Amino acid sequence: MQTLLLNSDDVDENARMDRVIDAVRGAFTAYERGNAKMPPKSYIDLPEYNGDFRSMPAYLDVRTEDTAEDAGWDAAGIKWVNVHTDNPTDHDLPTVMGTMIYSDPETAFPLAILDGTTLTMKRTGAAAAVATDHLAVPDATSLGIVGAGVQSYTQLDAIAEVRDIEEVVISDLDEERVADFIDAFEGRFDVRAGSIAEAGHCDILSTVTPVETPIVGPDDVGEHTHINAMGADAAGKHELADDLLLDATVVIDDHEQCTHSGEINVPYAAGTLTDADIYGEIGEIVVGNRPGRDDGVEGVTVFDSTGLAIQDVAAARVVYEQADAHDNGYPFDLLGLAE
Amino acid sequence: MQTLLLNSDDVDENARMDRVIDAVRGAFTAYERGNAKMPPKSYIDLPEYNGDFRSMPAYLDVRTEDTAEDAGWDAAGIKWVNVHTDNPTDHDLPTVMGTMIYSDPETAFPLAILDGTTLTMKRTGAAAAVATDHLAVPDATSLGIVGAGVQSYTQLDAIAEVRDIEEVVISDLDEERVADFIDAFEGRFDVRAGSIAEAGHCDILSTVTPVETPIVGPDDVGEHTHINAMGADAAGKHELADDLLLDATVVIDDHEQCTHSGEINVPYAAGTLTDADIYGEIGEIVVGNRPGRDDGVEGVTVFDSTGLAIQDVAAARVVYEQADAHDNGYPFDLLGLAE
Repeated sequence: MQTLLLNSDDVDENARMDRVIDAVRGAFTAYERGNAKMPPKSYIDLPEYNGDFRSMPAYLDVRTEDTAEDAGWDAAGIKWVNVHTDNPTDHDLPTVMGTMIYSDPETAFPLAILDGTTLTMKRTGAAAAVATDHLAVPDATSLGIVGAGVQSYTQLDAIAEVRDIEEVVISDLDEERVADFIDAFEGRFDVRAGSIAEAGHCDILSTVTPVETPIVGPDDVGEHTHINAMGADAAGKHELADDLLLDATVVIDDHEQCTHSGEINVPYAAGTLTDADIYGEIGEIVVGNRPGRDDGVEGVTVFDSTGLAIQDVAAARVVYEQADAHDNGYPFDLLGLAE
Repeated sequence: MQTLLLNSDDVDENARMDRVIDAVRGAFTAYERGNAKMPPKSYIDLPEYNGDFRSMPAYLDVRTEDTAEDAGWDAAGIKWVNVHTDNPTDHDLPTVMGTMIYSDPETAFPLAILDGTTLTMKRTGAAAAVATDHLAVPDATSLGIVGAGVQSYTQLDAIAEVRDIEEVVISDLDEERVADFIDAFEGRFDVRAGSIAEAGHCDILSTVTPVETPIVGPDDVGEHTHINAMGADAAGKHELADDLLLDATVVIDDHEQCTHSGEINVPYAAGTLTDADIYGEIGEIVVGNRPGRDDGVEGVTVFDSTGLAIQDVAAARVVYEQADAHDNGYPFDLLGLAE
């Protein structure tokens, strides 16, 4: 019995987006129904390095769910991830690096160790796709993206799985990044550069920036735009103006995480936005406990995504199963238990 | 930049016991002085599999300490470990398996991924050695061990680093395990099988069994025996009789862990043993805030060891540094950051 090592390329190749979306939908369902165990993220703050470590363990059981296409599994694992802001300038390393251990819940054997950075990108895109599927207008064809970093690519890949996207508007101050994005997609979509307001007037808008001062106001979006607010990942960060949030139907992934470090954390801490302004959690909508766009929700909708440990475990399962079936990855006898 | 994979053999070869003991001593020191960050162990209980997962993240800084021989380092990491009681009978797998991610605290790059099972064995032996060094009589020459499982070997290896052990008494109901133990050590020590009382009348006694009913009573130990109580790792387990504990000088590794799952957990929960019966934490003795055997402690002493995440990080550093210096292990580009 060996542990399968899956590097960034392996994760990228084996994270089939349709399956990751389905798995993340299953994770939200299990969480809502009480079939997931997810202790709070545990932080180790290292102010002297301007960084922190986060441990994200989780278990989820979709054996009795009917929402996942391939229902009938449970899974466990942990992601060990950091945010070290000075890495790019001081060490030529990414700000965020993740390592994921994916374990068999029945025996706890570590089935795989995966690059958690690529995995995070995939499961984050998948979360936006699940929210978009339930909150965007059914006939959405246009997607705006504010911020042309790595997550912008995954947003388009993922959201195109749930809506027939034809037109894409990419908005970023960095022209080179905009050009790279257009180069990557111009064969598949009608993709062009645009202002924040042009991106925001698409049927769907994903914001993927690390800003601490909101850059999207109420006039920047259309009447029925669904917004995936993906950028905020720490206290003090937010991308959307308070009055845009207050007028919208706000859906969160998890109350504790969103109020601590999600899009709503700043107005929530200020008391400007309260629990009464939160429509519900994405899991409630996925399982049908709360209406989505199909069942009467109108106007602007916002999905505040902070990223849950159950998403990582669900995505890791997809990657592991796919890689294992195709003999990808590097089997390694970490524990000395091979025959 | 690659991540060094260190399997069970690599960990075994590179965990030089004298250095692991020194590193664990440094970890206890840092913890006592407030130079460690160790969030509580986080549990995921899976009763349907009769098992659980535990995540143990930690950071420690011994850059300003003078107790560690090679002071001047800090280290971070996480161990993901389980206890699945049915594994040996149902799955031909160990009850406990661990995977350790060892990270550079400055950048969070995962420097190494290690077999956490072998690592746990080493750092557990090292903790007993540190406690023995401070609590056993200085001229101790005899060591008794109750329980001839894998940890018994590490206890002898480790304790022989801090005292000139000549005589060893091994006690276990399983004669084959006793014979194996004697075979392994009879060249180096005067080692023989014996009763629990014979083992307990040595200068030092280590108990390494998973029993839930105490097997060592007050009459089973000598007047100045130092006992390393290593076996209890869950609520309900204890190896030493209450009256033995109550008459002894009891030293713990961590109050929360010991009262929850250490040797003292059963009498503590019953109210038979209270905080007034706990002499102190091992860190207090290591740094000199509380006297050890050298400074006046007499009679029977007990070290209640549950195992701290900082011990794992400290031991992982020893293994990584040694392996890296000797080109051991398998470098793997997990994150796709190699040149």
